[in-house]
Amino acid sequence: MEQLSEIILNIREKSPVIHFITNYVSVNDCANITAAAGGLPIMADEIHEAEDIVKRCSALAINMGTLNERTVKTMLLAGKMANKYHIPIMLDPVGVGASTFRNKTIATLLREVNFSVIKGNMTEMKFLGGQITDICGVDANPDDMVTEENLDEAVKFALRLSTMAGAIIVITGKIDVIAGRHKAYIIRNSNELMSKVSGTGCMLGAVIASCIAVSPKNIISAAAAATLAMAVCGELAYEKTMELGMGTGTFRTLLIDYMSKLDTETLMTRGKITHIGDNQ
Amino acid sequence: MEQLSEIILNIREKSPVIHFITNYVSVNDCANITAAAGGLPIMADEIHEAEDIVKRCSALAINMGTLNERTVKTMLLAGKMANKYHIPIMLDPVGVGASTFRNKTIATLLREVNFSVIKGNMTEMKFLGGQITDICGVDANPDDMVTEENLDEAVKFALRLSTMAGAIIVITGKIDVIAGRHKAYIIRNSNELMSKVSGTGCMLGAVIASCIAVSPKNIISAAAAATLAMAVCGELAYEKTMELGMGTGTFRTLLIDYMSKLDTETLMTRGKITHIGDNQ
Amino acid sequence: MEQLSEIILNIREKSPVIHFITNYVSVNDCANITAAAGGLPIMADEIHEAEDIVKRCSALAINMGTLNERTVKTMLLAGKMANKYHIPIMLDPVGVGASTFRNKTIATLLREVNFSVIKGNMTEMKFLGGQITDICGVDANPDDMVTEENLDEAVKFALRLSTMAGAIIVITGKIDVIAGRHKAYIIRNSNELMSKVSGTGCMLGAVIASCIAVSPKNIISAAAAATLAMAVCGELAYEKTMELGMGTGTFRTLLIDYMSKLDTETLMTRGKITHIGDNQ
Repeated sequence: MEQLSEIILNIREKSPVIHFITNYVSVNDCANITAAAGGLPIMADEIHEAEDIVKRCSALAINMGTLNERTVKTMLLAGKMANKYHIPIMLDPVGVGASTFRNKTIATLLREVNFSVIKGNMTEMKFLGGQITDICGVDANPDDMVTEENLDEAVKFALRLSTMAGAIIVITGKIDVIAGRHKAYIIRNSNELMSKVSGTGCMLGAVIASCIAVSPKNIISAAAAATLAMAVCGELAYEKTMELGMGTGTFRTLLIDYMSKLDTETLMTRGKITHIGDNQ
Repeated sequence: MEQLSEIILNIREKSPVIHFITNYVSVNDCANITAAAGGLPIMADEIHEAEDIVKRCSALAINMGTLNERTVKTMLLAGKMANKYHIPIMLDPVGVGASTFRNKTIATLLREVNFSVIKGNMTEMKFLGGQITDICGVDANPDDMVTEENLDEAVKFALRLSTMAGAIIVITGKIDVIAGRHKAYIIRNSNELMSKVSGTGCMLGAVIASCIAVSPKNIISAAAAATLAMAVCGELAYEKTMELGMGTGTFRTLLIDYMSKLDTETLMTRGKITHIGDNQ
Repeated sequence: MEQLSEIILNIREKSPVIHFITNYVSVNDCANITAAAGGLPIMADEIHEAEDIVKRCSALAINMGTLNERTVKTMLLAGKMANKYHIPIMLDPVGVGASTFRNKTIATLLREVNFSVIKGNMTEMKFLGGQITDICGVDANPDDMVTEENLDEAVKFALRLSTMAGAIIVITGKIDVIAGRHKAYIIRNSNELMSKVSGTGCMLGAVIASCIAVSPKNIISAAAAATLAMAVCGELAYEKTMELGMGTGTFRTLLIDYMSKLDTETLMTRGKITHIGDNQ
């Protein structure tokens, strides 16, 4: 876990610039959680500046939330340019399965671009894996939650998907699974408000992008570090929200607060992470 | 009032998916207030996925705030598809009257789509009613406020507009008026910060959409329930903000907090609602 | 300083409508800080309504943050229309230098439109001044900070740039410099969280637009008043955040709180502003 903690601290040390092509719902949260983690976010979706910006960044984050024909073209070009310049990419296929347009977009992106990390809830990930489910929004289907009962199966699925997609897979939920290269991390710091605030998944994507920016040689550890950091900040924000007797508005503010204050001790004391497979 | 309270609780019970085509100013607030009320928001404005998404949702919310040529086309198609699949639609004609482009857009939308609820401030609603006023922004003109003095006139106007537009009409202000089908509700839970925070009107639209999603057979009660819930949450947020000695930033956060914590008792104790006309 | 304080109070008195063509990252913060200051924000970027909206507003704010081909056209037309109707314009050239596309856009805007105020960090301003630096995001390069050591040089640079651009120049940083017409203001109310929250620069642009709207005959005082107000609110928000033991999420909320509560006494007691050159 010390190694994961170092990755988080490295964001503040190196202040990596992260290029986001993301949705307009949670874009401000993504910018602020990135800044809170120590990164420098730049949001830009105009195709004519995609190459110029990507090549000066340390990571690219692509989030399909409010995609449209114009921004899909930018995603594709920026993705190719990131590959060309050896810049790691985090993909968040928000709401995949909700429309034919999204499904075609994801198929094109997966065919044309190599991603370092793909992150989503189990509903989105099952779709990616070809196990088409009844998707009716951007939230996970309750039947698709990772639980202690189906955890083994979920890890195996994530490992298979990782091989298929050639990327580290992060599946979020009550239990988070990070898998790839014959190993997996399991994180058990969940809280019940995380899914009641819009954009917490997108914010995790932003932190993952910040971590892979400073740890491009060890993507799975970077993805695990980011997921652990978000989960711990979520737990702290949840406890403080309950202590104050407040609700989801306060929780969202506190989530960014705790990311901006996160230190090694808190991460190591609070983090509930285990790993399976190869020794890290 | 018990019936209205049940509608609010039903959102948490049924977790309806709500499709938003909305502005990029308050879109995050709309997502978060919807989630706080118990709904599952999906923001999507690409025309190629409009039908796929609308048909799986329980309500559609159209907000004209930052409309453009591209999104107007999506609004129109999504509106028609919602009508085809019998999905209720909430329309928020933000800033109508501020430009010829907006006026033409609203005329087209009203001609081609049947709306369940149309919500706006009196300035916007007067424009809709053909009583063109001097519109210079998205806020209500001070001369257009509903007061105790002009309340009777306002209710009559809302009822006429409801008949003309074939939709339940919600007029927001110091006093809120909900009117249609020979009856009207009057809500008197106002507070002076509500109009100092950008997007509170849009957030009400989001809560209305959530209510009509779970109560499509009783649109006027759904619209009244949503307006009452927002007004009560606004009052609670105002009192807490004053108690803390803070300002509009804190008020906005608390508004979402109280929506996420709202229960029947609070709604019934705090709500100041009366109705006119047919027994509910 | 009394004169500057009056400008701030005048925003609440006159409630000017401000037209924003701005980025989708900080647009909500811009709307809320404008409302907190007493203005009425209207965000609109559709070219077909640009003239209708601009001509009814008291100021135009153009922010290049997430520009695209479509919105650049709107910026250009709205700028020309604002000039035609003698409406003051604030330009925030976010991230200029980060791509050829942005550089061409700023060149076109500067050639075709007369701006009242141009605001940015030193990295952006150096680019404008033709001293191209290594731009790698939207944040200032650490080497480009105004310090006590290079302050004289920074003021001279700002005055030269003001003459070149025909606009009042605001350079933000640890020390803020406002320069034009043979005089300059220096503000020393900085705090270390301001640069850790996304969009604080954009929010300052919004307050500048609100100030020039009510003080179009004295643009430099308006720009200084706005910059001072933001800096003082930042200091108050910083102190309260530290007192609460919280982080950047809370800071952002408090920044808007303090703007909504700002009074003459606080501004005059807290403000650390000096001026150089002609007596004001």
